[in-house]
Amino acid sequence: MHFELTKDYLQNLINIIDKKDDKAAIKLMDELHAVDIAEVYDELNIEQAKYLFLLIEDGEKAADVIAELDDDDRTRFLKILPDDVIASRFIDHMDSDDAADVIADLPEERQEEVLQRIKDIDQAGDIVDLLSYDEDTAGGLMGKEVVTVNIDAVVEDAISVIRKSVEEVDEIYYVYVVDNDEILKGALSLAKLLLASKGTKVKDIYEPNVISVKADMKAEEVANLSDKYDLVALPVVDNIGRLLGRITFDDLVDVMREEADKDYQMMSGLTEDVEHSDKVWQLTRARLPWLFIGLFGGILGAIILGSYESHLASHASMAFFIPLISAMGGNVGIQSSSIVVQGLASGNIGFESTFKKIMKELSVSLINATVFASAIFIYNYFFSSSFALTVTVSISLFIVIIFASVFGTFVPLALHRFKIDPAVATGPFITTTNDIIGLFIYLAIGVLIFTIL
Amino acid sequence: MHFELTKDYLQNLINIIDKKDDKAAIKLMDELHAVDIAEVYDELNIEQAKYLFLLIEDGEKAADVIAELDDDDRTRFLKILPDDVIASRFIDHMDSDDAADVIADLPEERQEEVLQRIKDIDQAGDIVDLLSYDEDTAGGLMGKEVVTVNIDAVVEDAISVIRKSVEEVDEIYYVYVVDNDEILKGALSLAKLLLASKGTKVKDIYEPNVISVKADMKAEEVANLSDKYDLVALPVVDNIGRLLGRITFDDLVDVMREEADKDYQMMSGLTEDVEHSDKVWQLTRARLPWLFIGLFGGILGAIILGSYESHLASHASMAFFIPLISAMGGNVGIQSSSIVVQGLASGNIGFESTFKKIMKELSVSLINATVFASAIFIYNYFFSSSFALTVTVSISLFIVIIFASVFGTFVPLALHRFKIDPAVATGPFITTTNDIIGLFIYLAIGVLIFTIL
Repeated sequence: MHFELTKDYLQNLINIIDKKDDKAAIKLMDELHAVDIAEVYDELNIEQAKYLFLLIEDGEKAADVIAELDDDDRTRFLKILPDDVIASRFIDHMDSDDAADVIADLPEERQEEVLQRIKDIDQAGDIVDLLSYDEDTAGGLMGKEVVTVNIDAVVEDAISVIRKSVEEVDEIYYVYVVDNDEILKGALSLAKLLLASKGTKVKDIYEPNVISVKADMKAEEVANLSDKYDLVALPVVDNIGRLLGRITFDDLVDVMREEADKDYQMMSGLTEDVEHSDKVWQLTRARLPWLFIGLFGGILGAIILGSYESHLASHASMAFFIPLISAMGGNVGIQSSSIVVQGLASGNIGFESTFKKIMKELSVSLINATVFASAIFIYNYFFSSSFALTVTVSISLFIVIIFASVFGTFVPLALHRFKIDPAVATGPFITTTNDIIGLFIYLAIGVLIFTIL
Repeated sequence: MHFELTKDYLQNLINIIDKKDDKAAIKLMDELHAVDIAEVYDELNIEQAKYLFLLIEDGEKAADVIAELDDDDRTRFLKILPDDVIASRFIDHMDSDDAADVIADLPEERQEEVLQRIKDIDQAGDIVDLLSYDEDTAGGLMGKEVVTVNIDAVVEDAISVIRKSVEEVDEIYYVYVVDNDEILKGALSLAKLLLASKGTKVKDIYEPNVISVKADMKAEEVANLSDKYDLVALPVVDNIGRLLGRITFDDLVDVMREEADKDYQMMSGLTEDVEHSDKVWQLTRARLPWLFIGLFGGILGAIILGSYESHLASHASMAFFIPLISAMGGNVGIQSSSIVVQGLASGNIGFESTFKKIMKELSVSLINATVFASAIFIYNYFFSSSFALTVTVSISLFIVIIFASVFGTFVPLALHRFKIDPAVATGPFITTTNDIIGLFIYLAIGVLIFTIL
């Protein structure tokens, strides 16, 4: 039903490559989907991958493989291939959006070289157009391959446009209807076309209410829009409504995945998109920044604790609850900010003012603070010898939970207002800040209570 | 280009509802897409939403609104509507998969009542079929609306099947080709059909290599598959290959989103799918479990520290670095496990054995441990008065980083092997365990070093 890469399959393939058994290798490559070949390449070294690649006879398939490779593999691959192979073997066979991505991956000095070797001038022109858009916008995601028909045409005209485009456009979902100025008027589904009788005017059967986006719309917004309305393809227009291209659902799914991965990585303290299969130094590099912030925060904590040395020396039991206070503060803070961050990412955050949002968070945190301050009071009342400590821990926990909640809610909202990615608030900076402020609250209250009681 | 819900729009709408201005309300509802109406409902109380709902004249649209509501709102809505309204006004107009979801949302005693009131017997039968599948499988995601044609038919037959189905099937992406036993043989794109000349046999133009899934395949796997191959629709078959239904990309995108949200929530310590717009008690309930684990961990930490009370009393400066050790251990652990969890979720984890994976993690952690143990050694060498403390902090940090890395890598791999969701490893249990073990290592080494030096 579908291919699954197994260890045995891989071993068999490597044996074939080692023996340079061209015939067996060609047969295996023929059986595989381009996506699967890209997956196989990921497990091979560059020489093995290159050997297989040059055996792929179908130019279209070779192009698809390149389009499906992940960025690192593709960069390695493009490095060992000459300019005219890249131009004639891939670019000429690719959809314009994939082709533009490949060109963008090349070092700048090679880009022009490869562009000049593309035989299809229209394709080269489309690529140059696409390269002008920011890759995080609708323009950067779209392909120029659209099937269009004039609003005054009849269904036969639409069918003949499809006939001409079927080679060039991978998947045709809609025929877009435009006026004489190329302004997008609507869309025509293939099912409607199929059922229309001869001579029917496009005008009479097209769907005028079509959702389109402007080329400068943010990729994340485009993805949210297509998710909301379940759109399989989305036409892209310029500022006066002229049709520029289309974005298909698969590219938008990739955007969603990347956004979700980014937020996840931010929270787990990774600064780069790393996978376990990456190299040791890549994995290390992605982790160091957040660990350095942690180290810095730890040192700051040590300095704060150090300034209370005499108090700690006479009341060593104060130290027992340092981990509790900082863990609870950190946990509450990350819960609060991640709820806000997810709400902002999905555009589902409600209409109340920031003040009202924080008031709501305050209610939640009052409940939590009461529950946990009481719980730890009861525990300490029975198991701790010092009443001053019992009171100190409960009061500080109460304050730390409320502070961390409000801080965790406020920071992502503020970042969002200043157009900074609110996901930063789930990352190291805020967690560390929360830890340190919590520690400070604990010590200050401790000194106060131990003096009073 | 598309609707955006603003505060002003909402205020205007609420004014119209308050005035019971039916005409203005109908006009507004007519202009909106079903998805937007569902979004508007989310901001209204149940009485306001009901008023608007009963004004929607188009049955299909009313059904779409119900299908688009989120679970909570839908449950509230269904509660106030009588059985026959549910049956005739929604279920009869819905795709079978959405209809089955609505029925599944009803309390059990109402399910049968509503099913019996459905006029379209085929639809009722389809729904009963669909209810038998686990909702986390391909069967639970699929709709029964498929357009099929026999492999021995000609293109005109296919077109006439489409003509009959066009009312019933929302979006037709493919005509599926089956044999006399309803076994799936392949698919036919509408573009191919449109371009085929009269009398062409289906057999001669259909695509035989179609990726299909079995009804019991896990929803998450189906989503990964469709993402990998960029599939817009995926046929579902039974164990002998008979076509049962199809899953469209929009439902699979929802699965991906849910999986990503679940992993994100797990890491942020939320046990339920909550949004900032939820009620205070829902928000509180989702947070309590992880905070209780945090509290429990904190108490355990206090007990461990308590057992070293005399040591801490004579060397109060040992307490200064408790936050540093626990923060670094927690951070390193979550980094390691989240890389593994993401790899497992995307099926992109490589083929080495668990042993090799852990060895790789060990290399990364050795670098990190060396970097940070040296950094803190240098800091303490200059700023701390106690050489024993300087040595203790460096050695413990070194061991804690290595332990947390290996533990963070091992746990999700082990959970995965025992078929438990590895994302649990990024949650409270492991983080808390890491904290406590880190603390223990620090104290044990402290006692040792302070005795020696």
